[in-house]
Amino acid sequence: MFMHNKKLQYTVRVEQGNPQLATLMLEQFGGPQGELAAAMRYFTQALAEDDPGRKDLFFDIATEELSHLEIIGSIITMLNKGAKGELAEGMEEMADMRNLTGNSTSQTQAILYGNGPALVNSSGVPWTAAYIDTIGEPTADLRSNIAAEARAKMVYERLINLTTDPGVKDALTFLMTREVAHQKSFEKALYAITPNFPPGKLPGDPAFTDLYFDMSQGEGGDVRGPWNSGELWERVEDRDAQCAVDGGDGSATVLLGERELQAVNAFAERTASVPDSDPLTGAELGAGPGAGAVKTQR
Amino acid sequence: MFMHNKKLQYTVRVEQGNPQLATLMLEQFGGPQGELAAAMRYFTQALAEDDPGRKDLFFDIATEELSHLEIIGSIITMLNKGAKGELAEGMEEMADMRNLTGNSTSQTQAILYGNGPALVNSSGVPWTAAYIDTIGEPTADLRSNIAAEARAKMVYERLINLTTDPGVKDALTFLMTREVAHQKSFEKALYAITPNFPPGKLPGDPAFTDLYFDMSQGEGGDVRGPWNSGELWERVEDRDAQCAVDGGDGSATVLLGERELQAVNAFAERTASVPDSDPLTGAELGAGPGAGAVKTQR
Amino acid sequence: MFMHNKKLQYTVRVEQGNPQLATLMLEQFGGPQGELAAAMRYFTQALAEDDPGRKDLFFDIATEELSHLEIIGSIITMLNKGAKGELAEGMEEMADMRNLTGNSTSQTQAILYGNGPALVNSSGVPWTAAYIDTIGEPTADLRSNIAAEARAKMVYERLINLTTDPGVKDALTFLMTREVAHQKSFEKALYAITPNFPPGKLPGDPAFTDLYFDMSQGEGGDVRGPWNSGELWERVEDRDAQCAVDGGDGSATVLLGERELQAVNAFAERTASVPDSDPLTGAELGAGPGAGAVKTQR
Amino acid sequence: MFMHNKKLQYTVRVEQGNPQLATLMLEQFGGPQGELAAAMRYFTQALAEDDPGRKDLFFDIATEELSHLEIIGSIITMLNKGAKGELAEGMEEMADMRNLTGNSTSQTQAILYGNGPALVNSSGVPWTAAYIDTIGEPTADLRSNIAAEARAKMVYERLINLTTDPGVKDALTFLMTREVAHQKSFEKALYAITPNFPPGKLPGDPAFTDLYFDMSQGEGGDVRGPWNSGELWERVEDRDAQCAVDGGDGSATVLLGERELQAVNAFAERTASVPDSDPLTGAELGAGPGAGAVKTQR
Amino acid sequence: MFMHNKKLQYTVRVEQGNPQLATLMLEQFGGPQGELAAAMRYFTQALAEDDPGRKDLFFDIATEELSHLEIIGSIITMLNKGAKGELAEGMEEMADMRNLTGNSTSQTQAILYGNGPALVNSSGVPWTAAYIDTIGEPTADLRSNIAAEARAKMVYERLINLTTDPGVKDALTFLMTREVAHQKSFEKALYAITPNFPPGKLPGDPAFTDLYFDMSQGEGGDVRGPWNSGELWERVEDRDAQCAVDGGDGSATVLLGERELQAVNAFAERTASVPDSDPLTGAELGAGPGAGAVKTQR
Amino acid sequence: MFMHNKKLQYTVRVEQGNPQLATLMLEQFGGPQGELAAAMRYFTQALAEDDPGRKDLFFDIATEELSHLEIIGSIITMLNKGAKGELAEGMEEMADMRNLTGNSTSQTQAILYGNGPALVNSSGVPWTAAYIDTIGEPTADLRSNIAAEARAKMVYERLINLTTDPGVKDALTFLMTREVAHQKSFEKALYAITPNFPPGKLPGDPAFTDLYFDMSQGEGGDVRGPWNSGELWERVEDRDAQCAVDGGDGSATVLLGERELQAVNAFAERTASVPDSDPLTGAELGAGPGAGAVKTQR
Repeated sequence: MFMHNKKLQYTVRVEQGNPQLATLMLEQFGGPQGELAAAMRYFTQALAEDDPGRKDLFFDIATEELSHLEIIGSIITMLNKGAKGELAEGMEEMADMRNLTGNSTSQTQAILYGNGPALVNSSGVPWTAAYIDTIGEPTADLRSNIAAEARAKMVYERLINLTTDPGVKDALTFLMTREVAHQKSFEKALYAITPNFPPGKLPGDPAFTDLYFDMSQGEGGDVRGPWNSGELWERVEDRDAQCAVDGGDGSATVLLGERELQAVNAFAERTASVPDSDPLTGAELGAGPGAGAVKTQR
Repeated sequence: MFMHNKKLQYTVRVEQGNPQLATLMLEQFGGPQGELAAAMRYFTQALAEDDPGRKDLFFDIATEELSHLEIIGSIITMLNKGAKGELAEGMEEMADMRNLTGNSTSQTQAILYGNGPALVNSSGVPWTAAYIDTIGEPTADLRSNIAAEARAKMVYERLINLTTDPGVKDALTFLMTREVAHQKSFEKALYAITPNFPPGKLPGDPAFTDLYFDMSQGEGGDVRGPWNSGELWERVEDRDAQCAVDGGDGSATVLLGERELQAVNAFAERTASVPDSDPLTGAELGAGPGAGAVKTQR
Repeated sequence: MFMHNKKLQYTVRVEQGNPQLATLMLEQFGGPQGELAAAMRYFTQALAEDDPGRKDLFFDIATEELSHLEIIGSIITMLNKGAKGELAEGMEEMADMRNLTGNSTSQTQAILYGNGPALVNSSGVPWTAAYIDTIGEPTADLRSNIAAEARAKMVYERLINLTTDPGVKDALTFLMTREVAHQKSFEKALYAITPNFPPGKLPGDPAFTDLYFDMSQGEGGDVRGPWNSGELWERVEDRDAQCAVDGGDGSATVLLGERELQAVNAFAERTASVPDSDPLTGAELGAGPGAGAVKTQR
Repeated sequence: MFMHNKKLQYTVRVEQGNPQLATLMLEQFGGPQGELAAAMRYFTQALAEDDPGRKDLFFDIATEELSHLEIIGSIITMLNKGAKGELAEGMEEMADMRNLTGNSTSQTQAILYGNGPALVNSSGVPWTAAYIDTIGEPTADLRSNIAAEARAKMVYERLINLTTDPGVKDALTFLMTREVAHQKSFEKALYAITPNFPPGKLPGDPAFTDLYFDMSQGEGGDVRGPWNSGELWERVEDRDAQCAVDGGDGSATVLLGERELQAVNAFAERTASVPDSDPLTGAELGAGPGAGAVKTQR
Repeated sequence: MFMHNKKLQYTVRVEQGNPQLATLMLEQFGGPQGELAAAMRYFTQALAEDDPGRKDLFFDIATEELSHLEIIGSIITMLNKGAKGELAEGMEEMADMRNLTGNSTSQTQAILYGNGPALVNSSGVPWTAAYIDTIGEPTADLRSNIAAEARAKMVYERLINLTTDPGVKDALTFLMTREVAHQKSFEKALYAITPNFPPGKLPGDPAFTDLYFDMSQGEGGDVRGPWNSGELWERVEDRDAQCAVDGGDGSATVLLGERELQAVNAFAERTASVPDSDPLTGAELGAGPGAGAVKTQR
Repeated sequence: MFMHNKKLQYTVRVEQGNPQLATLMLEQFGGPQGELAAAMRYFTQALAEDDPGRKDLFFDIATEELSHLEIIGSIITMLNKGAKGELAEGMEEMADMRNLTGNSTSQTQAILYGNGPALVNSSGVPWTAAYIDTIGEPTADLRSNIAAEARAKMVYERLINLTTDPGVKDALTFLMTREVAHQKSFEKALYAITPNFPPGKLPGDPAFTDLYFDMSQGEGGDVRGPWNSGELWERVEDRDAQCAVDGGDGSATVLLGERELQAVNAFAERTASVPDSDPLTGAELGAGPGAGAVKTQR
């Protein structure tokens, strides 16, 4: 079960109110790479995990991420605190209104959320569990966690670059650093499973594991690197050899029962196109008499 | 630019129609770990990439994933082909209707999509770009790609286990294998950037990089592993030491201007709660006279 | 900050695996009336609240709801535990596949989530912050909380009626009961603000506060009750008196500048319809020669 | 303004309860081609329209679609009425529970919506305004309306084929027929604007209006019809002639300022890939010693 | 059925065009607390309701809310009317373009919706039926309605504070006042059901109805009020007493069948972590030789 | 299968960076009328189509739309290229930050997507497959395609009007022109099916095909045009004649079984409202003693 302590994990000291900076911070509150996504990602993994070490790890970090959600939410609350009071008591003036309309998310935060923190991103898009990619296999989930921490680190890095308030910068640096630490933990946990590649249980088909299909050609299309050449790879450049690599005819087929066949044929007949017609169309009606819109005069 | 060849990259041979199996396959057509998500993930990275090698790599694989989208879509089309004809020509019978209602996604596929392939997952949830986590920094994006390929490999593995049609199994095995090959390419591309950890440019704060917060305690809460102990880590177990790790008081503060302060105070006063009251409430009104619902009689 | 104890708030004893029952339980894990919605509703209110009593109350209940999320997630995990192992190790048989296709959410839980708990509702729709209706005014938010607890209580009541597993029933009854207790707390907190009606600060316009518009007429359209008659209400039944109640002409107007007027007129002219024409249309082209489809022959 | 009459536009006579049939009907209540989408599509057009004839037309049909929404909602309510009572009073038995789990939407309708009509489609996906494609130009909007009516007609046709209850079939046939009538009205309104093609105001560039790019080649890739051949079209089959049709080099370029250039170069240098390296990767670490997983042994 | 009268329920007099103010108004057109949400909330309740008084009430207010949707939509249309004409006829100048890019919702309204009213909120998020919380039990639904009216009243109050156009202010005041009147009606309808608390049919478990769990502790964590103390409540502060309140061990368990157990064990073995290893990880590979990134040097 | 050529279909020459213009362009990248929607619309139709001509047509145009997606994505990338470098290397200055906060989508593009192209619209709303309206019947789908091309043409027209960069204007004109060409192709393909109206197979009921219901009355409510008068139409203006047009009583009924009836009655009794009561309500409690809020004093 969860418990709460009124102290934050990191003290938040905001120099002055700034609703527009608050809006940027929403990215780590209700955005796809934000702290709720992180917390829920690890929490759902913790629940389903049976390995004692990983279960503990996932609960530890899920709980820390909830505490980070509280820190970033507190930053947003402080940045909005004055504006919230003024809005609630009707002290906004027209200058503020014009300011408000300069940014759709700020305006929505004010009008809809009363300048409180809302679980939306910096464009006002509500958080969705579609952001969470837990699939219930640790050799895949740990890779997802590593990547998620890398992304969250980047978003904090960008926010730090855009902030001048020293207290906010300080708290953001703490939060960014913890993402690096979490990435290290997940890396260790991944490699403590042996083997962990390929993920899951089924092996690939050796006939197709080492092929590299050069699908994009033309100038700049044949750059070589360890990802597509060297002894690990067999490179397939020929367009024909890229098609129907199983040696078949590259078509899609199904066997139909008699009733099915009859229906499919009836459908085909009802909706058959007449290729050698030249029907008058709505576009031609719409272009009007003598109009050049349908057939360009050149 | 893209071009298209009528041949599939892999021949699809479906033994017989099976709309319910088609529904499962939707997971790789319009699901979060499916081929459209993969194609769009790499395509958006390719557009923004300047490094010639990675730009080529991302276009190569994006294009191959589009070809895989076509394969899985062709499997779904074949599995539904007979049912589509019967529906269109009104040849469904009540037995089929009852069958239809056994599965919401199948029913939606029939009624709404006419048994064609739709970009929804196996629960009928429409595909959303919220599934794509490209953030525009290669040391993070490549980790996201590695993780995405691992997840897609797992979903194919599960679908293969649930399929008995040999042609479908065969095509799915090809598709699963290619995810393994792609993961290998992305791994090579990540480690061809030196250094690539931590991702991005800003270093972490050394004071917090190696701390491990033991946030989840109690029985099973102190399992040790390389992710939380050893020389890499400094473990913080004490609850007080986990709070306000910056040495502050763990509160959140902001300096308010005079007008702001006045507004905040007016708001506070207007909405102040009266702690030592015992107000009659709507619940008590609603519980009715003599009802034990509000205060339990024990 | 948050802390975690490995013990649940309530012991979960599941008699036997049952993935389909697990699917129903998702409604309280990732559904609109579920525990994540509750926790996030109160957590966002707690962050923005300045009144010490309500801030404490919101954190207390938010934290308890997170602990409830863990309980319901643990129930789902237990119900799915066997199925998860079988899926992961490829031990599913065709009978299970057919079973799987009987329910889209169950199938998605297996294929996409590996039978782990996912933040989706019982139809597989991902949780969204659009479910949260915190608006940052306590006299409104507390009413929202009261209503939310009432709804959550009902969903638990329905789940209890549909469950025969005694351990699950027992835990659900605990969770349902807590919603009743929370509703009582929120009622007390609402009425500890005096006055709290109407919510907010601006009074209504006395001219329109007590009118009841009888908008739906016909048989059954004039039932009287305290909600539309009695001394509190002035009932408006006349259709004409329901229109333009300000005494104006009921139109919508705006003053346009010259450039605007010119543009509006140009637009109007370009897209003017010719009312007294009888143009040949695409539908008539499409109906074919002599077809009765466009003008029914009667 | 809107008014309501307790009589439906069409009498609904349902033979017996059938929650699963109710679920199918949701497609026209809260689905993308359903009546709410239709009503809101025309209502938003009516508000913004200045042409008196079209404004009247859009309000007429928007209002009728609201009345249709009421009819389809009443059908759903009747089909669920018995089940709703049994659920509410706890009279469900286990047989019903198992039945319930056979269909995720039915189960959600019961547990979450109490067997009332909900604005979701037959998969349980909530209605979204993303379904509405009004763009505010009548020559485009009327074409959208024509298409929307055609789609709605098809969904009703499919529902009729799947229904045996005569009263439901009867009401559905009325609703389907009205879609045909509405399509006719919108066709007339489109062609009463002269010219209406191409939509909007700007003409196309004559150099590209009549080209047909044969982008998909191979077997079946050169079927001719009036859509790609004949005097209206100039067919472009040569792959090189399909690229860079403006006669340029087909690249994308931008002029950068000095500071921008410096930044772009710094970014490129920091994240440069080393093409001729062969770095050890995480996949190789993960495959374990002697494993054939990374380089297939053949 | 619904009917429509061309007169609005309230006359709309807009002083001058103002697309940015129009954007704010969207909150009550296509936002979560807006008029479509209100109308659909009561309309779905009306359809499923059998009680004659409440059915009438829900239809009356649903119809009035549709008329309010028309008023707010007319305000938006008037505020955008000039801009719509200028956009359609290509009369925008660059100054306007820069203005346009100052606000994402305004820009989307122009480009995508042609400056017509769209069912999105002030951030451009499309309306979704996920906003509607009807669950089909009147003692819960009426509480939801009361809360919804309170929220809508607040949003109108905020919009009024941000508006200086007297005609807009006037219409908004009417709309705000009606929300107050509706709240009163729903209150009367709730208390006309006796008893109405707790909602639904099942009583709570007396063992847990009156407990208050003090989950959030530390400074500010023990504020007392009628919501957590007094004779109604038994306060639980001890952390151990908050866990496993049923007296069990606070774990989650399930009985597994033999085949299930075998699968679970195979899965555990395959993915077991090796706690006392210290594996080389991808992060260490990526940090490069001699780098301090993985283990901080202090 | 798909192939890729590094050359674009149209050369992109951007004069200078402009992130705010990039934001507007997103409408055609990840917006509802954008190129991904177009490509996926035709691609899903191509997969399910059996008619050789239409299958070829849908693949041709789907492939071209993918190439257009690449063009518009390249424009966005060029407009953002400098800003991307500056952000990544931390070279943003405060002036830029303020600039950034002027537009929520631009800010999200920077912080979340690193100034790369993202599949969102100009308000930052992620692309969703809910935009695609393929239903699997060619006589409906072709009408949807015609309408979609008309809408896309309009969005390009508006973007062209808002752009001064000649290279961008040039590429947009090419893209706009191709939408006109595609509309012509789809028109020809529709009318090459004979008959194609009404779409689908079932005829309408002649009793209701030609009725026009004058649902919206009052001033401006009786404008005549070919869409509602003339020999094609029978106009129904009388309000009573608009109700229950089947000649029934306009009610909704269902036959209930005995157990169902018993349940429905129990539910009705439990939740019956007492119409002639005047219960004290929560609103009255909340208005406080002597307050005029509940009953207005006039």
